[in-house]
Amino acid sequence: MQALPGFRDFLPRECAERNYIFARWRETARRYGFVEWDGPILEPTELFQKKSGPEIVTQLFNFTDKGEREVALRPELTPTLARIVAAHDRDFKKPLKWFSIAQCFRYEKQQRGRLREHFQLNCDIVGEGSLNSDVELIALAIDLLRALGFGADDFVVRISDREFWIDFLRSRDVAKERWSELLQIIDKSEREPRAKTAARLGDLAEPTFAILDGHGANEKLSRVMEDLRERGLDTFAKVDLSIVRGLAYYTGIVFEVFDRSGKFRAVAGGGRYDNLIAQLSDGAVSLPALGFAMGDVVLGDLIQEIPAADDQMRNVIDATSAVDIYIVIAKEERRDDAMRIGQRLRDSGRAVDYPFAGAKVGKQFQTAELVGARFAIVFGDEWPQVAVKNLANGEQQLVAQDELVAYLATSGSLSSRAERTGVEGPRGDTRT
Amino acid sequence: MQALPGFRDFLPRECAERNYIFARWRETARRYGFVEWDGPILEPTELFQKKSGPEIVTQLFNFTDKGEREVALRPELTPTLARIVAAHDRDFKKPLKWFSIAQCFRYEKQQRGRLREHFQLNCDIVGEGSLNSDVELIALAIDLLRALGFGADDFVVRISDREFWIDFLRSRDVAKERWSELLQIIDKSEREPRAKTAARLGDLAEPTFAILDGHGANEKLSRVMEDLRERGLDTFAKVDLSIVRGLAYYTGIVFEVFDRSGKFRAVAGGGRYDNLIAQLSDGAVSLPALGFAMGDVVLGDLIQEIPAADDQMRNVIDATSAVDIYIVIAKEERRDDAMRIGQRLRDSGRAVDYPFAGAKVGKQFQTAELVGARFAIVFGDEWPQVAVKNLANGEQQLVAQDELVAYLATSGSLSSRAERTGVEGPRGDTRT
Repeated sequence: MQALPGFRDFLPRECAERNYIFARWRETARRYGFVEWDGPILEPTELFQKKSGPEIVTQLFNFTDKGEREVALRPELTPTLARIVAAHDRDFKKPLKWFSIAQCFRYEKQQRGRLREHFQLNCDIVGEGSLNSDVELIALAIDLLRALGFGADDFVVRISDREFWIDFLRSRDVAKERWSELLQIIDKSEREPRAKTAARLGDLAEPTFAILDGHGANEKLSRVMEDLRERGLDTFAKVDLSIVRGLAYYTGIVFEVFDRSGKFRAVAGGGRYDNLIAQLSDGAVSLPALGFAMGDVVLGDLIQEIPAADDQMRNVIDATSAVDIYIVIAKEERRDDAMRIGQRLRDSGRAVDYPFAGAKVGKQFQTAELVGARFAIVFGDEWPQVAVKNLANGEQQLVAQDELVAYLATSGSLSSRAERTGVEGPRGDTRT
Repeated sequence: MQALPGFRDFLPRECAERNYIFARWRETARRYGFVEWDGPILEPTELFQKKSGPEIVTQLFNFTDKGEREVALRPELTPTLARIVAAHDRDFKKPLKWFSIAQCFRYEKQQRGRLREHFQLNCDIVGEGSLNSDVELIALAIDLLRALGFGADDFVVRISDREFWIDFLRSRDVAKERWSELLQIIDKSEREPRAKTAARLGDLAEPTFAILDGHGANEKLSRVMEDLRERGLDTFAKVDLSIVRGLAYYTGIVFEVFDRSGKFRAVAGGGRYDNLIAQLSDGAVSLPALGFAMGDVVLGDLIQEIPAADDQMRNVIDATSAVDIYIVIAKEERRDDAMRIGQRLRDSGRAVDYPFAGAKVGKQFQTAELVGARFAIVFGDEWPQVAVKNLANGEQQLVAQDELVAYLATSGSLSSRAERTGVEGPRGDTRT
């Protein structure tokens, strides 16, 4: 038996990589003053139809539950956010800065970078209309990637303005019914031959190309870039009006994050959606809002591609997953003593492992290496002393059993976990 | 619109409580040398039927997917563990010490402590038959609860031996077909009047009661208790042969964890299941194994009930969720400077928030209190100096803008997050 197609088993290595990404996401969102929330993984199908139309059902993992409810595994988090924000409108002072790490699902043929499930970081600001919040959100997207070890040569945020295009279409007296179609053509224009796009745009081709080629002045986008420059983040971003984003509900600044090589799908994408909460709450609550999502699958592929990011991930995982101390039981009659002291070491915060059954000392040392232990402590003939061996440099010392916990508490090689991983330190900024 | 019945929304406070429990679980499992894994949330229905029989389907969230597969939201993790361990038998040196935090589902009427979804910590040792591994697993269950601030007055691990009862039934020449029924009667005996149990047990009543009343010597259980005593954990456990656990696949030591007041459902339960991996892998892989599960719902209720545990949770959440620094923009023309320096503070690991739009200084200080900021930094008339105000003690100091990051890096009140939460320190052990 195997996992279902498009679903992943997370063996210890893969789980550690997933947790590493989650930890970086959480830590960066926290630096930006975002707080975490989550919703149910299963929701009424109607909630998603309300946002995306009835045709969304073809892409959902939806079913009828035993209580005759139409339900679906969530394909995205925004409808749940709108539901919760509308229900608790009076409980929270605006603006909200909320993030969530949510597993999302779609029933689609799986392909590279696109499975049937993935974990998606969602960061949203609710109740704020100022452009400062657009800049804050884009800066967060950039810092999430910097925290993973990516630099300005590795990725770029392409920023556009949906409102700008709407104004453009309006100024050309284009009928509203054609907007969606035209925006899609513009969105695809980078991936299509110019002649083909020109044919589809007709009269609009010439002015559209002029804008795409950078001859359109846009004050809003200039201000976003300037504010990013103030933060030292402008090298990670560029204005690119060919970004429109397919989804109809965006109302202002939109952006997508791509790897510079252009090898992968978008790493993240989002923008302002000022009317969506009102729409999803049937007008009960109306709040400007903006947000983006970043998935773990493409990101994982990109980490493997960029040595600096990959090295950082491996170093953090190695430093955090290893056992601190391996207890070697050289004489089985010392097992009780070893267990007693092992418990005290664990109580003091150390990760401690030991063999369940008697084994040769050499074999126990092999296991100590295998679990990445920093120290081995040998319980044997030296009792009531124990031999403490630093496995990094081979140094060995005899320590009285009742002084062992204190000895290891002050030992430099057994620094705290936070120190080892540099959880508080800056990250990614050496490459900026 | 609301969440589906039996499903939870996690608003920031509830999400922080959930994450607090997860963090304690992870940190304790790590101290025991357990490594994390995870499986798919959706699995073939057959995987669960194989373990629990076809009747399990009545309790599942199962459906037919669009590819005509019979699938189910996982009700538990053990079948997935067996599937993965069997598939990767040669990739990992035994014994495995693996844990997972998995959301699990059941289609059941919701009631106190029992929703339609919950998160379940699973800890398993695979490939080890020695009694030392049973003790290790029980010690881990105890330390998971100690790490949450519970003491020996708050909970107890009731330990029993399934094998003992099988031997007993065998010695009385009871037909194998009746074992399951009789074990269920014994399992329920504590909750039923003796006369009723006696009537159902017939001839076996007298010797069964003698055993339940503590007159049955059991060498294995005595050794478990002795080993727990060696670790200083015996006050958290007791032998209780009335624990049998309903599930047929247990083969040795079994245990359940209850609150001392008897107010709640079991907090955790598990035991040895030496034949299950062979059964689930159709004999492809045969490995002794043992494990337990601990759910987040009952645990959350119990934390609220025990002041020491509740206080610890609140303290940790308050220390970790607050913003470090709130930037007060007293003059709008200083916004760019504030953003530039705010970015550098975030780069240095600080959680920094600020107002998106201009607001009165007094109002900005109110927001600083609301987000729990430790420091407010005022960008205003004093520029190029800024006023740094310690919000805990009201002390204020003018600092040159280019010295601010260094100033705050050495400020005692802004200790690192790890220090604030005592992530590395011992926990719960003051009450043991």
